[in-house]
Amino acid sequence: MTLSLSKTVGEIGERGLLRRFRERVPAGPGVVVGVGDDAAAVEIAPLALLTTDSLVEGVHFRRDQAPPRLLGRKALTVNLSDVAAMGGLARYATVSLCLPPDLTLGWVDSLYDGLLERAAESGVALVGGNVARSPGTIVVDVTLVGEAGQLLRRSGARPGDRVVVTGTLGAAAEGVRLLDEGARLDEDGELCATGVWTESSAPAVLACLRAQLDPRPPLALARSIAERGFARAGMDLSDGLSLDLVEICSGGGVGAVLDADLVPVDSRAAGLERARGGDALSLALHGGEDYELLLAVAPEAFEEMGELARVWGVDVTRIGEFVEGEPVVRLRGAGAETLLPPGGHDHFRTAPA
Amino acid sequence: MTLSLSKTVGEIGERGLLRRFRERVPAGPGVVVGVGDDAAAVEIAPLALLTTDSLVEGVHFRRDQAPPRLLGRKALTVNLSDVAAMGGLARYATVSLCLPPDLTLGWVDSLYDGLLERAAESGVALVGGNVARSPGTIVVDVTLVGEAGQLLRRSGARPGDRVVVTGTLGAAAEGVRLLDEGARLDEDGELCATGVWTESSAPAVLACLRAQLDPRPPLALARSIAERGFARAGMDLSDGLSLDLVEICSGGGVGAVLDADLVPVDSRAAGLERARGGDALSLALHGGEDYELLLAVAPEAFEEMGELARVWGVDVTRIGEFVEGEPVVRLRGAGAETLLPPGGHDHFRTAPA
Repeated sequence: MTLSLSKTVGEIGERGLLRRFRERVPAGPGVVVGVGDDAAAVEIAPLALLTTDSLVEGVHFRRDQAPPRLLGRKALTVNLSDVAAMGGLARYATVSLCLPPDLTLGWVDSLYDGLLERAAESGVALVGGNVARSPGTIVVDVTLVGEAGQLLRRSGARPGDRVVVTGTLGAAAEGVRLLDEGARLDEDGELCATGVWTESSAPAVLACLRAQLDPRPPLALARSIAERGFARAGMDLSDGLSLDLVEICSGGGVGAVLDADLVPVDSRAAGLERARGGDALSLALHGGEDYELLLAVAPEAFEEMGELARVWGVDVTRIGEFVEGEPVVRLRGAGAETLLPPGGHDHFRTAPA
Repeated sequence: MTLSLSKTVGEIGERGLLRRFRERVPAGPGVVVGVGDDAAAVEIAPLALLTTDSLVEGVHFRRDQAPPRLLGRKALTVNLSDVAAMGGLARYATVSLCLPPDLTLGWVDSLYDGLLERAAESGVALVGGNVARSPGTIVVDVTLVGEAGQLLRRSGARPGDRVVVTGTLGAAAEGVRLLDEGARLDEDGELCATGVWTESSAPAVLACLRAQLDPRPPLALARSIAERGFARAGMDLSDGLSLDLVEICSGGGVGAVLDADLVPVDSRAAGLERARGGDALSLALHGGEDYELLLAVAPEAFEEMGELARVWGVDVTRIGEFVEGEPVVRLRGAGAETLLPPGGHDHFRTAPA
C-alpha cells in the first residue's frame, strides 16, 4: 500500500496505521508470532523483567520541540534504562500510541523510524502495536520485556556504602531550558537552532539538547555491574538525584550524605547556567531525566567497578556515603551540612509545559 | 499514608499515586519483584504472549458514562480477551495511566478496585504501574503477559471450514446507544438509570450496558479450544464481525459466506432495536466490542467443539462457511447473496464521542 506522507492519521485510520507498522517491523530473534495477531508469542528466559513508561505531550515533551524520530527513540530508551538498571537484557517491546487525527503519516512514520532504529541498536524486537485516536494529546506508551540476569534492586544499600553515579548530571534538565529558549534539534539530532545563544555556545547547546531529547543510558555497564555484583543497590536516575536517592535510602533503611563538590555537574550545562546566572548544581541535584545509574557500592568494590566502567567508556563518581539513620539525604558543602529536600520531577506537581 | 478520597490527583502527585497503587497490589504467584522497582521480575514459561490495548477517554469511553471501577475491569478484560484468543493463559499485567490533575483519588481508587478485582478473577498479577499527568484526557493502557499453550492463530482457515462465533452479538454496540440515551450503571454494575426506556425494558437495558461496560469474554473456553485443536484459526471479536472476519479470511487466503439468519443477534439488543425501529442485525455484523470468539472450525470438529462449549456454558453458532476466493465476506439472506462491506469499528474514522 502506498500512502502519501502528507495524509493525516484521521484519513488513514487505525487499521491503515497498524498495517503500516506491521509492514515496517522486521522479524526478530525469538519472535514466534509478531505484530498482527491477537497477541505476540515470544521465547523468553524463565525470569522475565517487565516495565512500562509513557511520554505524554504537554507533560514530557512538546510537539514543536521534539522531532518525532527522537521522540520514538526516547520512548524506548526510558524503558531500556529501567530494564538495564535491574541488571536485565531487553528483548521485546510493545508500543501503544494515542494520536490526534490531524497528525500526518510523515510524523508517525518518523516516530516509527526512531522506535525501529533504537530497537535495532538495543537488540529489541517490536512485537506489538496498538493505535488509538486521541482527542488532542499524543501519548507514546512502551512496555518492555527483558530477561533478568543478576537482579539489581533498589533495596540493599548499607551504611558505609558509597553513593555512586555514572556520567554527568544536569544536561537533560538544561536541555528543557534551551528548548524553551528556542534551541532545536532536527530529525537527525543535529542542531538547527541555537535559540537565544550565540554560535560559540553551539557545542554545549547541542550536547544538552541531545541529553534531553535523545538520552543514552549506560545500558551495557548497568548489566555488567549487576552481573559482577559490584553494587548492593541501584536504579536509574529519571526523577532527579535528590528524589531517587531517597528511594534507595528507603529501600535500604539508611540515610545518605552527599558532597556538593563531588557531584559531577555536566560541564556544558554548567557553562550555560553560569552565562545565564543560574545554578547548575541545582539542575544536577533535582533536574531529572539524566538516565544515568545511581548505585550503592561497598567500599571494597568501588575500585574494581571503576575499572569495569572504564572498559565501557563511562565515568563513575563517588559523590557521598550511605549512613545509618532516617531515609533522608544531607548535602555537605562550604563547611556546612544541610538537609536536601527531595525536589525532583513530579509531573503532576509541576506547572503544565 | 491516609489520603482523603476527595483529594485530587494533582494534589497527591505522581509518587503519591504510585505509592497508593503499590500499597494496594497484593503479592502474586511467580512475582519475584513486584511494583516499585525499576522493573518487575516474574517467572514465566519459555513461550510468552504479549499484548497491549488502551482505553482512551472520548474515544472508547466517556467519563460520565463509565463508572471507574468498570473501566478498570474492562481495561484488563480487553487484554485478557486477546491472550485467550491466542490460546494462552494470562499471568502478569502492567498498567500505564494518563490522568488529568482534576480527577479525585476516589475516582482513581475505584479504577484500581476494578483492575485489582478483575486481576484476581483471572489469576493475573499486577506487577507494574506508571502514572503520568495528562492535560485532559484519561488513558488507561494495559499490557498483558501470558503463557502460550497451543497457539491459536488468525491464519489457517481453509475452504469448507465453518465460520463459528461464541455467545451473542450486538449487545455491546447497543450499550453505546443506551449510554447516549442516558441509561447508566453504577459502580457495582447495577442499573441506576434506564434513560429514555421504561422499567419494563430494564432487564434488556441492563444486559446491553453490561456487555458494553463490563464484557465477559469466554476466556477458559478459548484456551480449551486451542488446547484441543478444535479450531484452525481464531481471534476475538473486538472490531466487529464484518471487519474481523476479513482478517481471518486474509490470514487464510480464503473468502467467507455468512447466513444472515444464523447470526446470533443478541435478543435483548434485538428487542430494543425493534422498539426504536433500528436494525439489530447491523449491530451484530458491524457493532464491535463483543469480545466473543470468531473461529474457523473444520466440519468434523464442530460437534465435539460444541460439546466442549456446553461444558463451559457458552453457546457456539455456525454462521457460515469459508470458501475459496478473495478475502471478502458475502452475506446470504432473503434469497440473495451480497458483498458485506467491512463496516466495523475504526476509532479514527468515526466521529468523536
